[in-house]
Amino acid sequence: MGAIWEALAAKKRQDLLNSIPEDWRIPSHLLPPNSQDDVTGFPASSGWFTREELEITECTALELLPRLASGELRSETVTRAFCKRAAAAHQLLNCLSETCFDRAIETARALDERLAQGLGPVGPFHGLPISLKDNFNLRGLDSTVGFTSHIGDPAPYDSELVSLLTRAGAVVYVKTNVPTAMMIAETVNNAFGRTVNPLNRRLTSGGSSGGETALITFKGSPLGVGTDIGGSLRIPAACTGIFTLRPSFGRFPTLGCRSGLPGQEAVQSVNGPLTRTMADLEYYCKAVVDSEPWHGDPRCLPIPWRPVSLPSGLKVAVMWHDGVVLPTPPVTRALRQTVEKLRAAGHEVIDWSPEDQAEGLLLLGRMFVADGGKSVLFQLARTGEPLRPEMAAYGDARELSGLEYWQLHIERLAFQKKYLDRWKAAGIDAILAPVTPFSSVENGMFKHVGYTGVFNVLDYSAISFPTGITVDRTIDVPRDDAPPALSDLDQVIRSECTVSIEPVSLVCQIS
Amino acid sequence: MGAIWEALAAKKRQDLLNSIPEDWRIPSHLLPPNSQDDVTGFPASSGWFTREELEITECTALELLPRLASGELRSETVTRAFCKRAAAAHQLLNCLSETCFDRAIETARALDERLAQGLGPVGPFHGLPISLKDNFNLRGLDSTVGFTSHIGDPAPYDSELVSLLTRAGAVVYVKTNVPTAMMIAETVNNAFGRTVNPLNRRLTSGGSSGGETALITFKGSPLGVGTDIGGSLRIPAACTGIFTLRPSFGRFPTLGCRSGLPGQEAVQSVNGPLTRTMADLEYYCKAVVDSEPWHGDPRCLPIPWRPVSLPSGLKVAVMWHDGVVLPTPPVTRALRQTVEKLRAAGHEVIDWSPEDQAEGLLLLGRMFVADGGKSVLFQLARTGEPLRPEMAAYGDARELSGLEYWQLHIERLAFQKKYLDRWKAAGIDAILAPVTPFSSVENGMFKHVGYTGVFNVLDYSAISFPTGITVDRTIDVPRDDAPPALSDLDQVIRSECTVSIEPVSLVCQIS
Repeated sequence: MGAIWEALAAKKRQDLLNSIPEDWRIPSHLLPPNSQDDVTGFPASSGWFTREELEITECTALELLPRLASGELRSETVTRAFCKRAAAAHQLLNCLSETCFDRAIETARALDERLAQGLGPVGPFHGLPISLKDNFNLRGLDSTVGFTSHIGDPAPYDSELVSLLTRAGAVVYVKTNVPTAMMIAETVNNAFGRTVNPLNRRLTSGGSSGGETALITFKGSPLGVGTDIGGSLRIPAACTGIFTLRPSFGRFPTLGCRSGLPGQEAVQSVNGPLTRTMADLEYYCKAVVDSEPWHGDPRCLPIPWRPVSLPSGLKVAVMWHDGVVLPTPPVTRALRQTVEKLRAAGHEVIDWSPEDQAEGLLLLGRMFVADGGKSVLFQLARTGEPLRPEMAAYGDARELSGLEYWQLHIERLAFQKKYLDRWKAAGIDAILAPVTPFSSVENGMFKHVGYTGVFNVLDYSAISFPTGITVDRTIDVPRDDAPPALSDLDQVIRSECTVSIEPVSLVCQIS
Repeated sequence: MGAIWEALAAKKRQDLLNSIPEDWRIPSHLLPPNSQDDVTGFPASSGWFTREELEITECTALELLPRLASGELRSETVTRAFCKRAAAAHQLLNCLSETCFDRAIETARALDERLAQGLGPVGPFHGLPISLKDNFNLRGLDSTVGFTSHIGDPAPYDSELVSLLTRAGAVVYVKTNVPTAMMIAETVNNAFGRTVNPLNRRLTSGGSSGGETALITFKGSPLGVGTDIGGSLRIPAACTGIFTLRPSFGRFPTLGCRSGLPGQEAVQSVNGPLTRTMADLEYYCKAVVDSEPWHGDPRCLPIPWRPVSLPSGLKVAVMWHDGVVLPTPPVTRALRQTVEKLRAAGHEVIDWSPEDQAEGLLLLGRMFVADGGKSVLFQLARTGEPLRPEMAAYGDARELSGLEYWQLHIERLAFQKKYLDRWKAAGIDAILAPVTPFSSVENGMFKHVGYTGVFNVLDYSAISFPTGITVDRTIDVPRDDAPPALSDLDQVIRSECTVSIEPVSLVCQIS
């Protein structure tokens, strides 16, 4: 007989599979072999999806929304199509944590009825299915955030953002997998296991919002919401080649979600959209801000949506590396190409010194374990669940005292000031940088969140975007004139890094 | 031979007096007797001020600024007049902590010269002397915040707000006294001693910005800046009958000041103006925000100044008492009169339940001593300075662990959400309440910061304003039908409270 946590996990995984109706279970003869890396072609090639289901699920959010608002497409039809494709995604990628198909179809029908009655669309997301990272509480569903201890503890309410999206007409239908406590840069935990990348199942879809990005890249969701405290939106978006915005804290409501480190505020977790297009990203952000979320979340700032007219010539600083780990060849190639495009478009590009990055990353690490890892270890102990090796730091941590916590705040503020002054002195509009040192990596091989995490400490907003470049084995080979490794970690990553076919993303941060 | 701290304090006080030039020392034969309570008439009645000095120092900021900008008044003339009146204020009220008269006159001359050259005013505060609470760092001056341990440790730089004000044309000339660590609601410490109220020297000018409010009420400053973490702007403004705004965090720059509890962030200290008129208050706020302080302080929010057009009918909730301590008769009378005025002006007024106030006050207390009082005790130990009896809580405190600190954040957020929901459900625009249970109190008798402190936990902005009512011994007597005391503290305050002639203020908070 196994340990408590194993029994809980096995039952939870089975319950999740059982929540998928028979009609949406992939017939076994159609299942691609485990050896098949890229499964993004499955929906179109399997013949298991109807033409209408494929047509709907291939659409972006902005392609669907006008048709939903006009009644050309029924929300129930769209919802059922995405439920089925999300169910398929889960069976191929292990990307879901919860489903609420019944709630979704009920919501969709009510929206369709409203429209049929001539009452018009209910809001900017009328009828659109939106997927949510596991930590967004949905009434009646678990939010395990990867802990077996939270299995069977359903949320008594919808989180603030869910209420907002529902009022705006969105249809919630699935929640997506995360790593334990959402504190690993891949998506793996002891309750649900590992989510893999639909572009190449040997690779990670990143973390901690990697259930979302696997689902969205498979087109099992037109738009999803994840969270970010050290790179958890940007890293999985980059690993799968989609877009995200990590907003500054206070822009989107965060209230009523389950945290992996409850009460930790030295660095604030934020949430943001994950989309396949920039247009979808902007539409979501404007809609959320226009709903004035500060009326429901006391930490949301009353800043209305502001149209921005950019000057013709921007000044962009490029951080070619962070001083700790050099980017791999395809990432550097993407940086070079993007710089060329910026210059060709008339923008000024300067180099950005990585002199502050290592310090920022150390600060972030101290914030995560300021409780001595107790919050994580307590949840594990409740079911005898083992600490995952990726989270060894939580087992080794020393708890800060109240006074030491205050000291950490002082150091963080000094760091923020130093960085801001350097930004202002350079007169830049943005910093362009890698999201990670690589495009993606084999499952279990992710290392180094330095490129993203420092900007959480700074609380700068950041857009992660695919560059249009994909890894090319013929070009992206280690160069003979490659500079020496910056660190032991750099050396390890250089020797391990997979050169595959995945897209390469960069990130642009704004002070 | 005394202890180290006593010697340091004695020398510091003497140095401060010595920094006042001979011309600005009140001739001993003109000094009012210690028994004289109200010294606000001294400047006009003593004959020691010139007509021009009196005319200038009686002006509000907005009366002076156009004349300074046009060159009708020279900044040096205005600065010298306020330096002299501030020096007099200190000699009568013990309200200063530092002077920089030479810097002030040099700055003023440079501004005058600029204007003479036809270069126009340098900014919205061109030539105006502005006084600052002791914790605003000024290059070359101490910021003791009431600790003898900080004596002789001059600041290496100007704080962010000082740089901003200086760029905007302000002339800094004095810093003002505070209580130890700025954590007492009166202004008293072991370095400089006690600041008293110019309206009645037997009474406190409040704290912790009580050096400022004593100075401004004496008209030794046309406009000053204080800070607030539990009532430190609102209480001293109320004790002296002037205006203040406690803004929400992130509106005005706080960077580069000396904190009494360095690194404490569970509740954020903010700064705001102290003025004799609402027009001066609004002018200051707009000028500071218009200078876009977010370019210099990483925690300032990029929210531009927004003109507000109020609806004709507001809904105002009145908190007649906080459930812990009943207001004294003149305060309740001021509330009643203000409610009548609001109703007469067409606004709706409802009652506000104090049900959450006690909980909020307890939360605030836990935040202040989360380091187990170590920050305060460490500074005291450096010079052997005794803990003041008003700060006994810092000697008795137990330090939180990192995990307990996170728990405190969770409780605070839940409290903020509960309060916000109640606000929204009631559909109110503001809460009108007492600032303190009394108008002012005899020196050493201040108790209960509950009326102000809860709104720091909530981070609501709050305006404290005089009502036009002053205490009237004939009306403001304890009523026979007074309700029973709400608490032991209520009973004590009721039995102690002075009925004097001082003005009564109220506070209006906005979510």
